[in-house]
Amino acid sequence: MKSTAPKVTIEVVAKKAGVSKGLVSFALNNRPGVSPETRVRILEVAKELGWKPSLRARSLSTQRSYALGLVIARNPDVLASDPFFPSFIAGVESILAPEGRALVLSVVPDEETELHTYRSLVADGRVDGVFVSDLRHNDARIPLLAELGLPAVTLGRPDGPSPFPAVTVDDTPGVMASVAHLATLGHRRIAHVAGSSTLLHGLRRRAAFAAALEAAGLPAGQTVETDFSVAAGSDATRRLLTQDHPPTAIVYANDPMAIAGLGMAHELGVRVPDELSITGYDDIDFCRYVYPPLTTVSAAPMVWGRSAASTLLTLMENGSADDVDLPAARLVVRGSTAPPSDR
Amino acid sequence: MKSTAPKVTIEVVAKKAGVSKGLVSFALNNRPGVSPETRVRILEVAKELGWKPSLRARSLSTQRSYALGLVIARNPDVLASDPFFPSFIAGVESILAPEGRALVLSVVPDEETELHTYRSLVADGRVDGVFVSDLRHNDARIPLLAELGLPAVTLGRPDGPSPFPAVTVDDTPGVMASVAHLATLGHRRIAHVAGSSTLLHGLRRRAAFAAALEAAGLPAGQTVETDFSVAAGSDATRRLLTQDHPPTAIVYANDPMAIAGLGMAHELGVRVPDELSITGYDDIDFCRYVYPPLTTVSAAPMVWGRSAASTLLTLMENGSADDVDLPAARLVVRGSTAPPSDR
Repeated sequence: MKSTAPKVTIEVVAKKAGVSKGLVSFALNNRPGVSPETRVRILEVAKELGWKPSLRARSLSTQRSYALGLVIARNPDVLASDPFFPSFIAGVESILAPEGRALVLSVVPDEETELHTYRSLVADGRVDGVFVSDLRHNDARIPLLAELGLPAVTLGRPDGPSPFPAVTVDDTPGVMASVAHLATLGHRRIAHVAGSSTLLHGLRRRAAFAAALEAAGLPAGQTVETDFSVAAGSDATRRLLTQDHPPTAIVYANDPMAIAGLGMAHELGVRVPDELSITGYDDIDFCRYVYPPLTTVSAAPMVWGRSAASTLLTLMENGSADDVDLPAARLVVRGSTAPPSDR
Repeated sequence: MKSTAPKVTIEVVAKKAGVSKGLVSFALNNRPGVSPETRVRILEVAKELGWKPSLRARSLSTQRSYALGLVIARNPDVLASDPFFPSFIAGVESILAPEGRALVLSVVPDEETELHTYRSLVADGRVDGVFVSDLRHNDARIPLLAELGLPAVTLGRPDGPSPFPAVTVDDTPGVMASVAHLATLGHRRIAHVAGSSTLLHGLRRRAAFAAALEAAGLPAGQTVETDFSVAAGSDATRRLLTQDHPPTAIVYANDPMAIAGLGMAHELGVRVPDELSITGYDDIDFCRYVYPPLTTVSAAPMVWGRSAASTLLTLMENGSADDVDLPAARLVVRGSTAPPSDR
């Protein structure tokens, strides 16, 4: 059994002052029901014991919690299997740390809990502003946050009206460049392992894939929808490659699925890139170190995190901030793409 | 230019009450210098405007911030390249979310900033307790946190005295089982790509590796120290495999380095597992989906996160909590290990 050292609590002050905890609480919260004499005595005892107004007390006067919030409505696993969020968070931290600010992170299971969480964060004054990621069609968070008056920055542009600055990395050019690269290499049967169509970026990458095929004069490609998970990427790859006329190239909506696809191709004895070309999205660290190294689209999630954090701080400081368009995601060609074989 | 809706601030109350912001602040913080009449008027105006005591005010009375802290003293990149922390955090969140508590995350560049950050978290009352990860020899955080009176849980047992409960996953049996597995397969030249020796778990895995070789009656193996990063794992593998008498098996101190090692072996034309066996540590999601799937040691970081969060909540609730010994990390044999070839 271990225990921790005592600190100056309401209890300690109450005992020393010879009053109830409730009375101390009332006095410190400046609520009615405490006589002026008792109030003064309690404050003197608190001061004598070394009780100090904390950030919580100071933040009452400035209405600041010195913390920013990120609420992620996905299975907690996604944090572990998709390095996008950890990279984004690393970028955010690199701006907040020197400012003495903290990041409050909540991972919630569904959209309903997500909305409730934003209400709680505001009611409890726990954060001064929030990052809104994983935008959805007609996203309910935008009107809620506007109603709550909580400063926010959206990652990407919502498809409805929004009073908040958007920090955007356009993913369309990178996905289109992936398809164009494969078409130039001579691929004609190109498939897409898509992310969830409930998320705007899943939908957008899928639309970019279709548009790029059309621009290249190719027929519509097979698209398999997934939940963005490693396991789903592996399954989708097996399904695509065990057909009678498998694709010669697969464009994945994120890197973890592409890396799982690479593993599945190896397992099925399909050589990459000789018999199958593969592209990913995000350019996570692993891409350079798998074999063959992964051709992917660099979205620079750390840079995105830094920019989103700076924009949110500006918004909180000045009451307004401009939209930021970061450089569009760009194709990085590595060893996982090559001309198709004649099989 | 975007802006956010107004909320009930000190300014708004001050304007309506016809007094200075400073006076409102003094009144709300119950500091001297405000006449009783003015104090009452300010409180009435605040109430009329819908100003409500926030969590910050309530936490003054209960001395609770309803948040737990995790300070990570590594390059922010580590969050992105090593899924251990994201998995651990996912486990913590799965316990905190239903409790309405938040996780305050700080990623700091060095140990000095780390100590300063704990002092700030306490001075600002920002967290009720903290997780202490990446234990070091004679870890300076233990006496500091004891002095500060901040409830804490250590991940693993410190090598000095500690008043805090430890939640431990013993990594020694898993590393020893990896070496024993390789020795049983017939490997005689086994190398170790170790983590940083400034961290207790890096040191411990290295000692377990050496002890297991001795137990198997094998000569001491080559050990290459790294910073646990993917890039360092890749470099170390190249160095080991391009020697005159390369090892036939490599035991890596974490999975990301093992996955990078797998890629490097492919690049050098060394077939896994025919010509080289590889083992990792942690059992991150990717292990099952690379090819060949990675033999590794399962440390269940999500379970670890859940248990650490429960223990910290118990400590805060009861003032004490028992040490928790989770099941020791265990070897999971997959396709990346096989008997050595005769090359």
